[in-house]
Amino acid sequence: MSKLFMFEKPLGMRDALPGYFQTKRNVQRVINDEWESWGYLPVETPTLEYYDTVGSASAILDHQLFKLLDQQGRTLVLRPDMTAPIARVTASGLQNQHFPIRLAYHTNVFRAQQLEAGRPAEFEQLGVELIGDGTSSANGEVVSLMIEALRKTGLTTFQITVGHVGYVNALLEEVLGNDERADDLRRFLYEKNYVGYRQHVENLPLSSLDKKKLNSLLRLRGDWRTLDEAVNLVQTPAAREAVEELQEMKAVLEHYELSDYIKLDFNLFMHMSYYTGIVFESYGNNLGVPLGSGGRYDELLQQFNRPAQAVGFGLRLDLLVEALGLTGAVPSQTCILFSPERRPEAVDHARKLRETGKRVVLQDIRGVEDVDQLSDSYEDVISMIGKKKEGAAHE
Amino acid sequence: MSKLFMFEKPLGMRDALPGYFQTKRNVQRVINDEWESWGYLPVETPTLEYYDTVGSASAILDHQLFKLLDQQGRTLVLRPDMTAPIARVTASGLQNQHFPIRLAYHTNVFRAQQLEAGRPAEFEQLGVELIGDGTSSANGEVVSLMIEALRKTGLTTFQITVGHVGYVNALLEEVLGNDERADDLRRFLYEKNYVGYRQHVENLPLSSLDKKKLNSLLRLRGDWRTLDEAVNLVQTPAAREAVEELQEMKAVLEHYELSDYIKLDFNLFMHMSYYTGIVFESYGNNLGVPLGSGGRYDELLQQFNRPAQAVGFGLRLDLLVEALGLTGAVPSQTCILFSPERRPEAVDHARKLRETGKRVVLQDIRGVEDVDQLSDSYEDVISMIGKKKEGAAHE
Repeated sequence: MSKLFMFEKPLGMRDALPGYFQTKRNVQRVINDEWESWGYLPVETPTLEYYDTVGSASAILDHQLFKLLDQQGRTLVLRPDMTAPIARVTASGLQNQHFPIRLAYHTNVFRAQQLEAGRPAEFEQLGVELIGDGTSSANGEVVSLMIEALRKTGLTTFQITVGHVGYVNALLEEVLGNDERADDLRRFLYEKNYVGYRQHVENLPLSSLDKKKLNSLLRLRGDWRTLDEAVNLVQTPAAREAVEELQEMKAVLEHYELSDYIKLDFNLFMHMSYYTGIVFESYGNNLGVPLGSGGRYDELLQQFNRPAQAVGFGLRLDLLVEALGLTGAVPSQTCILFSPERRPEAVDHARKLRETGKRVVLQDIRGVEDVDQLSDSYEDVISMIGKKKEGAAHE
Repeated sequence: MSKLFMFEKPLGMRDALPGYFQTKRNVQRVINDEWESWGYLPVETPTLEYYDTVGSASAILDHQLFKLLDQQGRTLVLRPDMTAPIARVTASGLQNQHFPIRLAYHTNVFRAQQLEAGRPAEFEQLGVELIGDGTSSANGEVVSLMIEALRKTGLTTFQITVGHVGYVNALLEEVLGNDERADDLRRFLYEKNYVGYRQHVENLPLSSLDKKKLNSLLRLRGDWRTLDEAVNLVQTPAAREAVEELQEMKAVLEHYELSDYIKLDFNLFMHMSYYTGIVFESYGNNLGVPLGSGGRYDELLQQFNRPAQAVGFGLRLDLLVEALGLTGAVPSQTCILFSPERRPEAVDHARKLRETGKRVVLQDIRGVEDVDQLSDSYEDVISMIGKKKEGAAHE
């Protein structure tokens, strides 16, 4: 074995030690319970998928995919997200199930990292997909579920930023037509590089009115009143439809009494190329990166020969644990320390304590490295060493 | 997208649809609860590890490893087992924790498959490792935990087959010395190819007494009385030590009142090259392949610069679900079907039902593909369509 790599993990890879694991699992269970109570059913898909099936449909940048060859020479990828695999499952294993279909997942996803990036190459995502329902109720349900799940974890300060891909495209198309210049601006939005966006607009061969219009997009942020500004800025049918969808979603969220969690941001543009309608991100507890994101993708399923409208989102479990700032205490344990001749008694006592719900380590004293430090590791140490005294209690 | 691969998953890869998932999760939770009550703490490690660190230490056959290159050109592997990663964690993240250390894991592991094999390329393993304790109590504890975990799942007919790598090696060394011929025989044992073993023995240039001795190994199977036969067959110190370890383990298992689950099999030889002492497999409900396996590996940790004796095992979650033969019923759900004007009422009613622990789908009727089939999918459908009648109940 090369000494160099002995304790090393590949770039961006992490271990979860007991304390952290405990916290993570609690958060995960709270969220799972929430979406199961909303009728979302869990599915799992393989870690590896064919590049041709899912890798290209997922639209994660190609250099961010972990690729390998199988023994038949086909290219495989480590799952970069779950939306495309779930689309595959919907069109295959669940093909006889009628729409709408509500699915939930909890899985790890992968992003190959450049050396300079400090981002994880593997992280856990919890998410839902509501497939085959294009109504505003579906949009509102999914956003409400994100809010309720975050609330249930105990997160206190967070908000959901909502935008609309269709609106941005309507504006860009009105001013620029459907050409490459629009793609450049979309890329600036996706990178949240608003300075670059403005500079790029400045250099375009457009009237000052058109430039002003493009720059106005950057100011379309704020509370629900931003919808009125959005109506005024672009009046094409596609733009109006987008605004109407947001207005309807507002009504739904009011029914859920959750509309106050929303901030509108028409600059929000996701890198996932499959989004077609509303898009949203959740920000919490002063964390700079979104805890989760999602949106409507009405065209992805038809790539799998089962056309359907769909909306969903994913939450980053690692960031959520970070935002909650939980300490991850290891649960308290009792240790029964015994010498071999009293093993039967020790085994019996351990069994009884475990039946009451206690976590009990049963430890042969011959296997202990340092008896003194043992008591530090346990809430309680019960000694069963040497000959048992007549009538003596355990402790 | 290539149409060819549209619905395909890579060879040996599987989806877990809602029904199966539910069953699997129940089994997994029962087992997790059991080993946490014995004081084993959960850890997780990355899916990808350096080949140089873990891939080579894990001793899964090289052609069974999924390999890829990272962006710096180093070879990575998809985790083929958890023992080597846990050894890495013990020597790094947990280096300040005193022995013994009890760890548990639930994870997926990977095996690249030849085209002809019908075996899964990814499967879930649940396991424990007890590190830094070389006592017979540790051997007995780990085997007892395997039995108790299997019992808690509801598995009724199963047994644990126990062997000892040290005993087999002692026999082979006594007859053949420490040369390649012994490796050939070990390979036949590991492949459970006993015909091949006999033929190979027949062709070795040995006395008929030595041949008889080698073939006698194949008959060392049965209940605990087999230990007496083992004592008679080989009397070198290493063989005697191995038999003593098994005798001590028998005593421990009697203390746990679990010794009846054991069948001895001195032919048992694991492919994992790191085992040094007892080895064991669990067979259940007429399934031809083992549900799980484990053993003692006292030399692996020193490869990670933290020498320690250790014993552990892993269970195959997929095979366990298969052995249990559970049907995997999807939990019953209520559906509230509403028209948009009655959404506030529907949202309110759903919330109340969810608070009582019910799983409630809230469905806008405009998003339903086929209203007639809706009632088939749910235990209960509550309609809130059209104008509410004065004083009408929901149902």
